[in-house]
Amino acid sequence: MKEKGLILIFTGNGKGKTTAALGMTMRAAGHGMRTCFIQFIKGSWKYGEMEAMARFHKEIDFHVTGRGFTWKSDDLEKDKAAARKAWEKAKKVIQSGEYHTVVLDEFTYLLRYDIIDKEDVLEVLRGKPADLHICITGREALGELIELADLVTEMKPIKHPYQKGVKAQKGIEF
Amino acid sequence: MKEKGLILIFTGNGKGKTTAALGMTMRAAGHGMRTCFIQFIKGSWKYGEMEAMARFHKEIDFHVTGRGFTWKSDDLEKDKAAARKAWEKAKKVIQSGEYHTVVLDEFTYLLRYDIIDKEDVLEVLRGKPADLHICITGREALGELIELADLVTEMKPIKHPYQKGVKAQKGIEF
Repeated sequence: MKEKGLILIFTGNGKGKTTAALGMTMRAAGHGMRTCFIQFIKGSWKYGEMEAMARFHKEIDFHVTGRGFTWKSDDLEKDKAAARKAWEKAKKVIQSGEYHTVVLDEFTYLLRYDIIDKEDVLEVLRGKPADLHICITGREALGELIELADLVTEMKPIKHPYQKGVKAQKGIEF
Repeated sequence: MKEKGLILIFTGNGKGKTTAALGMTMRAAGHGMRTCFIQFIKGSWKYGEMEAMARFHKEIDFHVTGRGFTWKSDDLEKDKAAARKAWEKAKKVIQSGEYHTVVLDEFTYLLRYDIIDKEDVLEVLRGKPADLHICITGREALGELIELADLVTEMKPIKHPYQKGVKAQKGIEF
């Protein structure tokens, strides 16, 4: 009997959402299962995760989509177009049947800011291959997304070093 | 100038604590940084993370300590003794200066259930090498531990598949 594929969401304002998705991906890869990790926001290829992912090049496909959608955009419309194109790609990946897990990293923003159509997303998620796991990360996940999900964890910040004036640390934050 | 090493805590009852620590460890390893991951509770060597870790055998040292401390113990005193021995080992690892990051996975229970001495733990953490990052995971982190930490995220369960009667999934939960 095939497994039931879950829809998992890591949301909230705290640290650890992408990191948990990353850990989940590498754990699945450790089982020899194929995973596709699609990063919707972070545009840089310099992150340590890229190097870590490279160890699993047979099991993990990693995509940083388009220009990446950023908060300090010089061209918001271009970023939005890239995000929409990224979602079209993600749809194909979800429907391909080639993966054990698909991660849509920092995806919630696309819905929260109405960059892509909510009904389209819900329909694709409802119609996903039965055994596919989908993991979505990002702040402020929509209620409809939470409703649809099997597992939702809110990463809640209790304490953050930036409050103490400590800068981001290589190997920890990126 | 050396980095300031942080004390990070992933606590709360939700999913993603160990997974985030795992992701952090592999990200640091992706930067070529050495990490020591000490598992205080889970005793099995069958987990996908073990296989994932093996890809980083040069950067990550992984320890499953003693018998492992379990909730269905047939010999609680033996488990406690093993946990205490594990903490002695962890102290040496912390003080060795050989690592960029040390993860004490599911460590909070040892304090919560008074298996090891709280003052000893706080002293070791306060006296850690200045550039060492320490990541502690587990439910119900003590207030004194949170007080000492630089970054604390509470993983808060919003929804869990077991509530729906779905069993643990290979590659997702383990």
